[in-house]
Amino acid sequence: MFNAIVSADTLRTTLDSVSVLVDECKIHLEEEGLEIRAVDPANVGMVDLELSASAFESYETDGGVIGVNLSRLEDIAGMADADQLVHLELDEETRKLHIAIDGLEYTLALIDPDSIRQEPDLPDLDLAAEIVVEGRDIDRAVTAADMVSDHIALGVDDADEYFYVDAEGDTDDVHLELTRDDLIDLTAGTAHSLFSLDYLKDMNKAIPKDAEVRMELGEEFPVKMHFDIAEGEGQVTFMLAPRIQSD
Amino acid sequence: MFNAIVSADTLRTTLDSVSVLVDECKIHLEEEGLEIRAVDPANVGMVDLELSASAFESYETDGGVIGVNLSRLEDIAGMADADQLVHLELDEETRKLHIAIDGLEYTLALIDPDSIRQEPDLPDLDLAAEIVVEGRDIDRAVTAADMVSDHIALGVDDADEYFYVDAEGDTDDVHLELTRDDLIDLTAGTAHSLFSLDYLKDMNKAIPKDAEVRMELGEEFPVKMHFDIAEGEGQVTFMLAPRIQSD
Amino acid sequence: MFNAIVSADTLRTTLDSVSVLVDECKIHLEEEGLEIRAVDPANVGMVDLELSASAFESYETDGGVIGVNLSRLEDIAGMADADQLVHLELDEETRKLHIAIDGLEYTLALIDPDSIRQEPDLPDLDLAAEIVVEGRDIDRAVTAADMVSDHIALGVDDADEYFYVDAEGDTDDVHLELTRDDLIDLTAGTAHSLFSLDYLKDMNKAIPKDAEVRMELGEEFPVKMHFDIAEGEGQVTFMLAPRIQSD
Repeated sequence: MFNAIVSADTLRTTLDSVSVLVDECKIHLEEEGLEIRAVDPANVGMVDLELSASAFESYETDGGVIGVNLSRLEDIAGMADADQLVHLELDEETRKLHIAIDGLEYTLALIDPDSIRQEPDLPDLDLAAEIVVEGRDIDRAVTAADMVSDHIALGVDDADEYFYVDAEGDTDDVHLELTRDDLIDLTAGTAHSLFSLDYLKDMNKAIPKDAEVRMELGEEFPVKMHFDIAEGEGQVTFMLAPRIQSD
Repeated sequence: MFNAIVSADTLRTTLDSVSVLVDECKIHLEEEGLEIRAVDPANVGMVDLELSASAFESYETDGGVIGVNLSRLEDIAGMADADQLVHLELDEETRKLHIAIDGLEYTLALIDPDSIRQEPDLPDLDLAAEIVVEGRDIDRAVTAADMVSDHIALGVDDADEYFYVDAEGDTDDVHLELTRDDLIDLTAGTAHSLFSLDYLKDMNKAIPKDAEVRMELGEEFPVKMHFDIAEGEGQVTFMLAPRIQSD
Repeated sequence: MFNAIVSADTLRTTLDSVSVLVDECKIHLEEEGLEIRAVDPANVGMVDLELSASAFESYETDGGVIGVNLSRLEDIAGMADADQLVHLELDEETRKLHIAIDGLEYTLALIDPDSIRQEPDLPDLDLAAEIVVEGRDIDRAVTAADMVSDHIALGVDDADEYFYVDAEGDTDDVHLELTRDDLIDLTAGTAHSLFSLDYLKDMNKAIPKDAEVRMELGEEFPVKMHFDIAEGEGQVTFMLAPRIQSD
């Protein structure tokens, strides 16, 4: 059983955070809220998302897992105004999701969860450095790096206590340094890893410009990025595996 | 003789209502105003439009018919600001239309009316049900239906007194019910017909979101949609032939 | 040595005025400011631009010439908000330009000035007529002319003292007349020349809609268009060679 009402805005933000990585996903219907974990086909980018029951206008479930086509569900949510309510109700028998928006009813065929790619375990990593940065600074770095290269280095200088971004192109380079003063928070430690810009661009699309993003970084290690959605009632973690340094 | 001044906004709304169905049309220059009737090449969608002389700042004619290329005329009208005035003057000798917008003069070659597809007669139909609905509700129904199917059923439930829209896709369905309370008006009667979504999408483009649309519906019959343009000084009727039900 | 700080808005306006004609250009670093002259590959359109040192927040140079890829530099400037400051610093040794925007550093490889097309001399012409017209009127004329033709005639009627624009298509024509009252200024004289619309459309893109454009016109002669940028601290001159009249 699953019967919930949520604002279109919250639903869209939730779906967008996952759809930047995968086309289909499993949604775990837990008593405390929704949970989604997914990894892209190349096993490079992962997402772990929780949307608390308190993010909903009303939320009832006795558990279970459903498989959904994300772009289809995004299109439906996209028909509502941001503050309109979306009513979601699972028909256990037909395995369809009834979605109602102000009198309009959409019946969405679900996907067999067993046919969807296995969910990843996001490993616990003991990463040396941690910063908290505004979403808009990630956006600036990614946009600039994209002008010169298809990969990007993220690092923290332990001695001088700053976070940096580096992108080296054939002729042009991009470099961004954010000191403790430019950041919301910084826990220094030696960190430097190279990442595929394509993945970071996709993740960046889902990060609100005004979000406080907690970024955990290591030496040739994955980066983890944590941020809130739905006014703090939802948490998203992106994890991106590093590229092997070429030199 | 034809010499008229009209706001760019009114001219554009008028042209848009016809150009969603045809590329060229005849415009009847009547003493009481302009009249346009047109049918698409497949004889499925028809439009009947009247724009009263009182919709114009000034309007003079001694009658006649001109043939115009609609997209060309729309492009010209599109250069003016919404509240700018467009001066239209027919040169009988050269069969050209002089269009002046704030000092800018455009000379438009007219099309021989005899070379334009015959105008349709919009049949008088005695349709069982009639509703009055907001343009934005038609828009919602058409947008949602388009996500699952290429045809759409419109109907009225005589017993329970509601208007409904149905679209059935291969896996997903869309259903909208509008009761007497959701509608501006309802005259119940048994009605159910299936229509091509492509045509309804085109007509929907020309229906203002805030228009009150009077819709006449029957059992396996065409639908008629009536709405005002130009602050009530113009009337548009769309008629759409039903598709044969496949089952 | 070159070290300067300028608002993103001023930098962008400057670059746009040149990039409508060429992809690469030489920038002369003079004590009084920047100077750029360029001609398109077909030798039809020319631009002459000066941006005064006083248009900058700070400006220091000991002279020299640098060669730049305009679209690359525009992309970089495009990342800043309109009122953000852009810091430009030349590294003489590496022949690279360091561009800093709020902590973000971009290192742009310069182009060997000798590899860039020779700069044109904009000839001193004694043109018979001169008008001063708003940028938006040039925009209207060019947009309308583009609907019917690929060339455009600009002229001044000496006797009746008006500026006119003519475009003749296969079936439709466009004509604009601006009298002394419609213009900011007019020095009458006999003038009529035909121009390629493609070039004038490109130049039009760089002319602010609210600019006062001084236009010098002759009989089968190039047209010169002068306007200010950067709140009067920069001057742009476009010169466009006439097409040979076909009749």
